[in-house]
Amino acid sequence: MIYRFLATEQGMYDVIVIGSGPAGMTAALYAARSDLKTLLIERGAPGGQMNNTAEIENYPGFNSIIGPDLAYKMYEPLARFGVENVYGDVVEVINQGAIKVVKTEDAIYETKALIIATGAVHRHLNVLGEAEYAGRGVSYCAVCDGAFFREKELIVVGGGDSAVEEAIYLTRFASKVTIVHRRDELRAQKIIQERAFKNEKIAFIWDSVVDEIYGNDKVVTGVKIKNVKTNEMTDVPAGGVFIYVGLDPITKPFEALEITDNAGWIVTDNEMKTAVSGIFAVGDVRAKDLRQITTAVGEGGIAGYQVYKYLQ
Amino acid sequence: MIYRFLATEQGMYDVIVIGSGPAGMTAALYAARSDLKTLLIERGAPGGQMNNTAEIENYPGFNSIIGPDLAYKMYEPLARFGVENVYGDVVEVINQGAIKVVKTEDAIYETKALIIATGAVHRHLNVLGEAEYAGRGVSYCAVCDGAFFREKELIVVGGGDSAVEEAIYLTRFASKVTIVHRRDELRAQKIIQERAFKNEKIAFIWDSVVDEIYGNDKVVTGVKIKNVKTNEMTDVPAGGVFIYVGLDPITKPFEALEITDNAGWIVTDNEMKTAVSGIFAVGDVRAKDLRQITTAVGEGGIAGYQVYKYLQ
Repeated sequence: MIYRFLATEQGMYDVIVIGSGPAGMTAALYAARSDLKTLLIERGAPGGQMNNTAEIENYPGFNSIIGPDLAYKMYEPLARFGVENVYGDVVEVINQGAIKVVKTEDAIYETKALIIATGAVHRHLNVLGEAEYAGRGVSYCAVCDGAFFREKELIVVGGGDSAVEEAIYLTRFASKVTIVHRRDELRAQKIIQERAFKNEKIAFIWDSVVDEIYGNDKVVTGVKIKNVKTNEMTDVPAGGVFIYVGLDPITKPFEALEITDNAGWIVTDNEMKTAVSGIFAVGDVRAKDLRQITTAVGEGGIAGYQVYKYLQ
Repeated sequence: MIYRFLATEQGMYDVIVIGSGPAGMTAALYAARSDLKTLLIERGAPGGQMNNTAEIENYPGFNSIIGPDLAYKMYEPLARFGVENVYGDVVEVINQGAIKVVKTEDAIYETKALIIATGAVHRHLNVLGEAEYAGRGVSYCAVCDGAFFREKELIVVGGGDSAVEEAIYLTRFASKVTIVHRRDELRAQKIIQERAFKNEKIAFIWDSVVDEIYGNDKVVTGVKIKNVKTNEMTDVPAGGVFIYVGLDPITKPFEALEITDNAGWIVTDNEMKTAVSGIFAVGDVRAKDLRQITTAVGEGGIAGYQVYKYLQ
């Protein structure tokens, strides 16, 4: 592979932000407003997970807004403050101390500081209807979307802590929550399991997987469930399907930096600093409890400010 | 004083949020979206410091917005999710373990959990023109407003860490920054002082105070400076005045809880929990580095979620 050495053409950056979800865009906004030479590298449409979100009603300032619309509203002002923007899939970051080298598939950039905002991806079931009904009954985030499902019967797929905790959370809204799990027992911590077993709104379908999600031309109306031992198929009506089969941080390009915990999430302090001087991380890629637009924006603000202090 | 016992009329709250700046409003939004019975107590117009802010261009989602407009946009949806709202100046909080008692000047409320979002107040100079030109050349936040003052000559008032650090920050935009300090030496840490002394854009006027801020019908054009030793008055032209003579947390009602550090700021962990079980704090009132709408909203989201987990 022959790289174009863009650093020599474009000069050294003060800071490069990788990923343009709400965390990355906010970090870039704050850095550029501090008059830092800022480059935002993104491999898709600006907005990150917001682009897969139908309706957002928990980002203050908006009563309710479509995800891609909020993404555009966050992205549009960046150029005015001097944020440069390129398309690129980052494949490697090399820490040379005071300078960090960022390689994309076809270019190399040099920067004094780096903010990682690559986010995470929800593991999918990869079944019929899952992509089609995403944001229209299929969700990967109960805290984000639970309130849209009042008095509905819901399916939760998974058996770990997240699946069971979110099933309990959803009982605040739903009339019934059915946990579909491929094994005959849960993986979640015992205390969480007990809470679920005691909850009268929660039912279980064991040894089973969701084989198909179906609906009308607007929303989900049910799922086909397959028993993995008997291969028997059952139809279960449902107004929503929450999928918790795993969440993976996007950190492959940063492996050599050794800044993650055992599960692969990037560890930072309260100033968003990683273990490597001059490298920060914000948003969903961080090791933390709650992954929201609000928290992403808060962390972006901190990193954009701390990167100025680091460069001083 | 005779209190009306509102708890008996209105029942026990799951959570009471004190203060309706961006941190408090976000916490209330998240709590109410988790179906918690939520009361927001505010002693002024909803919005907190945003109401004193002319133009905001570092809250993602808005290119540029007037502070009170953003305040209203954040406030307006709360009722839809069931956030109750009362006017009240909280005078005392009593921790009774599983129940917290919140006293305002004329009422008493009971709640299972409490989120403190009372914020902080900038100390004012209390000179002619300061209030008149607030948001029109008079600012208390360089990170918020610095970028509005490109190529302007600026005055910074104060001699502590904040004053000198923010003066250095402002040199990224301003053509000249003059620090006006009432003594003949700075209080700031030596390393920060040295950085300021080396900066060619920074000048000093010692033994002096700003006696008046004046301008035209739109913006600040200069200040009258008085030498406190000679009483001599000097006119200094300026496009902006940044005032850093102190920031005070609003924590008087919580003194008995012993949840602050020595300087009076409330200490929390990463989940916004204070030292008292069931009491959380968010926003400017917290002991922290950066006080922004973005960080307030991030912390509000975390507290609104953690309060649900606490009540489980």
